[in-house]
Formats: sequence, structure tokens, C-alpha cells
Amino acid sequence: MASEYTVIRQVEFSDTDMAGIMHFANFFRFMEAAEHAFFRSLGFSIHSTEPEEVSWPRVHARCDFRYPLKFEDSVEIRLLVREKREKSLVYSIVFRKLNELPPREVARGTLAVACVKRDRVTGKMSAVAIPKAIAVLIDVAPPEQPES
Amino acid sequence: MASEYTVIRQVEFSDTDMAGIMHFANFFRFMEAAEHAFFRSLGFSIHSTEPEEVSWPRVHARCDFRYPLKFEDSVEIRLLVREKREKSLVYSIVFRKLNELPPREVARGTLAVACVKRDRVTGKMSAVAIPKAIAVLIDVAPPEQPES
Amino acid sequence: MASEYTVIRQVEFSDTDMAGIMHFANFFRFMEAAEHAFFRSLGFSIHSTEPEEVSWPRVHARCDFRYPLKFEDSVEIRLLVREKREKSLVYSIVFRKLNELPPREVARGTLAVACVKRDRVTGKMSAVAIPKAIAVLIDVAPPEQPES
Amino acid sequence: MASEYTVIRQVEFSDTDMAGIMHFANFFRFMEAAEHAFFRSLGFSIHSTEPEEVSWPRVHARCDFRYPLKFEDSVEIRLLVREKREKSLVYSIVFRKLNELPPREVARGTLAVACVKRDRVTGKMSAVAIPKAIAVLIDVAPPEQPES
Repeated sequence: MASEYTVIRQVEFSDTDMAGIMHFANFFRFMEAAEHAFFRSLGFSIHSTEPEEVSWPRVHARCDFRYPLKFEDSVEIRLLVREKREKSLVYSIVFRKLNELPPREVARGTLAVACVKRDRVTGKMSAVAIPKAIAVLIDVAPPEQPES
Repeated sequence: MASEYTVIRQVEFSDTDMAGIMHFANFFRFMEAAEHAFFRSLGFSIHSTEPEEVSWPRVHARCDFRYPLKFEDSVEIRLLVREKREKSLVYSIVFRKLNELPPREVARGTLAVACVKRDRVTGKMSAVAIPKAIAVLIDVAPPEQPES
Repeated sequence: MASEYTVIRQVEFSDTDMAGIMHFANFFRFMEAAEHAFFRSLGFSIHSTEPEEVSWPRVHARCDFRYPLKFEDSVEIRLLVREKREKSLVYSIVFRKLNELPPREVARGTLAVACVKRDRVTGKMSAVAIPKAIAVLIDVAPPEQPES
Repeated sequence: MASEYTVIRQVEFSDTDMAGIMHFANFFRFMEAAEHAFFRSLGFSIHSTEPEEVSWPRVHARCDFRYPLKFEDSVEIRLLVREKREKSLVYSIVFRKLNELPPREVARGTLAVACVKRDRVTGKMSAVAIPKAIAVLIDVAPPEQPES
């Protein structure tokens, strides 16, 4: 079972804005990229008909920004499973800038997603239980230890 | 004095994702667009040396998503000033889909921004008081009335 | 019959990059927005099952950049139909910065799109004739006169 | 001396649009990412004061799209130096989808960039010679051999 996953990526020119830093909306794109990589690490795609055709719309997203990211900064995006319910998951995501020693936490976010099925006729989405094949692989991460 | 501002825009093709709906990160771009239009409505640009050279980095952003937006949906983005402090502002932003009767609230967000000045030599940003010429124009919106 | 359409929009903060100007990839988003507004001006949506379920994938896109656009610049995006074939259209798009007198041409692009139908079983797309209800409304724009 | 550079990346959810494929404007973001990785491979950053403070605005960009890219497709982006002039460079960029055997060319683009210096007072940009430290490292790629 897995309760976290970490990806590392570099801030691209098109991620920045005229303030010279990563545009804040891109932190949310980065969160989602980590979530999808987490699913791949479990052997699934977030967008797939396997094991069942479900989707994962976001119901809540938030981010606290402490320090900016700049072009070509190397950023660690660590996703942790914070809550696991029958039909939804809550992740927390910690961003750390690696090209600074010691690495510095620059932002911290939360993403809550629902597991839904789309009615083939009406197109309406309704919440369903997370497919068992996926649910059995996901665990809640232990609480973070305060840094000493 | 102004405590709110409303813009209306249409969801573009490039705002959507393969789920057929507006990608969630774009709600944050839309929030910011409303904030900047609010500033223009006061006679200022969010990015300007007038009345003083300050910037407005985001310190917190969140959004609750209730209902999806689709291509060519007409969306009302209503920004309300929720808190006004010496060196920061907190907005709430209500998204309503207008091409449905009655208009439906689809999402609701919060944006907290700090007023900062960048040191010309070190590039470091530090929080400063909101320039008076701007501060005198901004008021906190009255609490929302529950819909009856 | 229509052979051109013009939209005006303002460069947003999220359109810019750390060079302080609109990121070049966004010129292509703007071109597409003009194309879709052109279709709406004809009474159709680019993404619709009416009059038939066709899609319009891009086969070619290009842009020549002469002068940068900045945050809050007002830009006129004029789309002209340059070629109209049985199964495809070619547009040219002229960008002019309006908040400068006289307005200055800042970029000029081309977009070639194919009319395709997607096979419901295999998902494969193949080029089809532009639906007659749309084709009868579209005309090729006269060649531009050299500015005197 | 180097005349080409190849990066591999995966199409992300936020790169797609409601047509279920990568939005065409993102091909241009990907081209630029390859260009910047090419510069890093030479020991420089595209955005740096080293060896001199120059910028590289795009003067021309084009792309021909042959086949769509989908979510989680693995794409090889191969950048080749096609022209090297005193004050500008022209790249061609070949996109190949790797998760298909044999890999399939899906798009091919061109990017022409100028080397410019910004006047510190007026902000005006003017073309300058490519800094020698960079120019000596860059070579024009040999013409492609037709596939046999």
C-alpha cells in the first residue's frame, strides 16, 4: 500500500509570469501532476476505463504560498494521502525548492477529489465508491512529525 | 469606496481539459483576472509604479468546486473584499454560470494577497502598508445575506 | 456571408512571462479564440453536434512576432478567411495593439484547420466536407491592400 | 560543439483540451522547453546575465500537426539547429510519440529566435551578436537523411 509519492520537476519559462516567478495557478497544475504520477505508481491511470470507468473531479483545492519559485528552480512535489473515504480522497502536497541548501519549503497545498461515474445517457456525474482494485493500494500517510 | 467588482467572461477552448470541462487551475486565473479588473475600476493597475511601486503576491488561494463549467459557458465572477488589513487584502470570489436559469453558483474561492515592496538591490520582497491612494478606495463588503 | 471577424481583448497577468511580455504560445490561444468567436458570429459553435458532429483539428499554425504585447495591453485580433476548401479552412490573423496611436501591428499568424469526423467505434478521425450549413456562410476575404 | 538536443516528456492532464488531445498551443511550450534544455546542456541558462545579459525573443514560430498527442503519451522532442546567424538562431523541432512502435512523428515545428539586449533606460530591445561564449558551442545540424 502506498500513502505518498514524490516527483521532482523544473520550473519552465512558460510557468513564470511578469513578476519573474512561477504564476500561482501553476502550483495547482503541479499538484495534479503529482497526483497523476501517484496513480501511475499504483499501476493505474487517473483517466482510464481500468479497472472501471471513473473520473476524479476536484472538489476543493487550496495552497499557501510562502516563498516564490523561479525559472529553472528544481522543485520537489511530495503528495501525501491525508484522508481516504469511500468515495473521495484528500491529499496534502508539500513543495520544496531543492536548489537551495537546506531545501526550503515554498508552498503547501491540499487537494480533495471525488470518485465519480458519468451517466452515459445524461452525462451527469455522481459519486461512487473508489474501485476496490485502487482502494486496496492506497493508505493514509502518518501525521507529519514536527521538524526538530 | 468600492468593496466588490464583477466581470463576465466566456470559457474558452484552451480553458478546458480532456474531461470536457474547465480545468480547475483556470478558476484561479479567473479569480486573478477579476482582482485586476477591480483595481482598474479604482483607477489603478495591479502592476504599476503608480502611486508607488508595490507588488501583490498571493499568500493563500483556495476554491471549492460544486459544478463544472464547460466550453462557451458564460461565467460571472464576482469579487468581494472580505478583509482589509494594513498590508494585505482578502477577497472572496463567487462563480456563477449565467447560461442557465436561474444562474447557478458553480464555485467559490478565496484569495489572500500581500502588499510588498521589492528591494532594488537584493530583490527581496517585504510587506509594506497598502499605498494610501489605493487603501482609501477599498472597503470591506457587507456579509452576504443567506438566500431566502 | 462572412469572411472576417474581429475581437478585442486585454492581455492578462497570467498571459505574461518573466520577460515581462505576453508568452508567445498565448498568441496561438488568442488566434483560436478569434476563430471560435467567428463561428459564433455565424450562429454555430466550433464544438457542437449542430448541424453535424464535426471537429476542427489544427493542421498548421504559425506566427511572426514583430513587437511584444504587455500586461493590460488592448489587442485587436482580426481573423480573415484566406482559403476555403472542401474539407479545410485557412485563416490569417492580424494582431494590433490598440493602446498606442496609431495602433501598431504586433504579430501576424496563420491557422489551417481541417474539418473531420470521428468514428464512433475506432475513435479515428477522417477529413470530411465542411457541413453545408456552415460552408454557405463563409467566404474568402479579399486580398489586403498595401497600406499607403 | 552541439547542434541538437533531445528531451522526453509526458503529456499532462492540464496539457489536454476537451477534444481529448494535447492543445495545439502547448506544442509551442514544449518546443521552448527543449530549447531551454539545449542551452542548459551547453552550460548556460536562456535567462541569465552570464556570459552577458541578453534575451531571446521569438520572431517566428510554426508547427505542422500530423497526429494528436494524448494524456500520458510519452513524447520525444528533438531540437536541431537549422541556421546560425550572427544575431539569431533557427531551430527545427521534431515531435515523436514513443509509446507506439515504431515511434511515430506527430508534429514538426520551427522556432526562430533573436539575440537582443534591452536598454536599461528606455527598455527598448535591439538585436545584438550572440555572445561568443555561447556562439562557439553551437553548430548547425547536418541535413536530415530521408528515411529509407
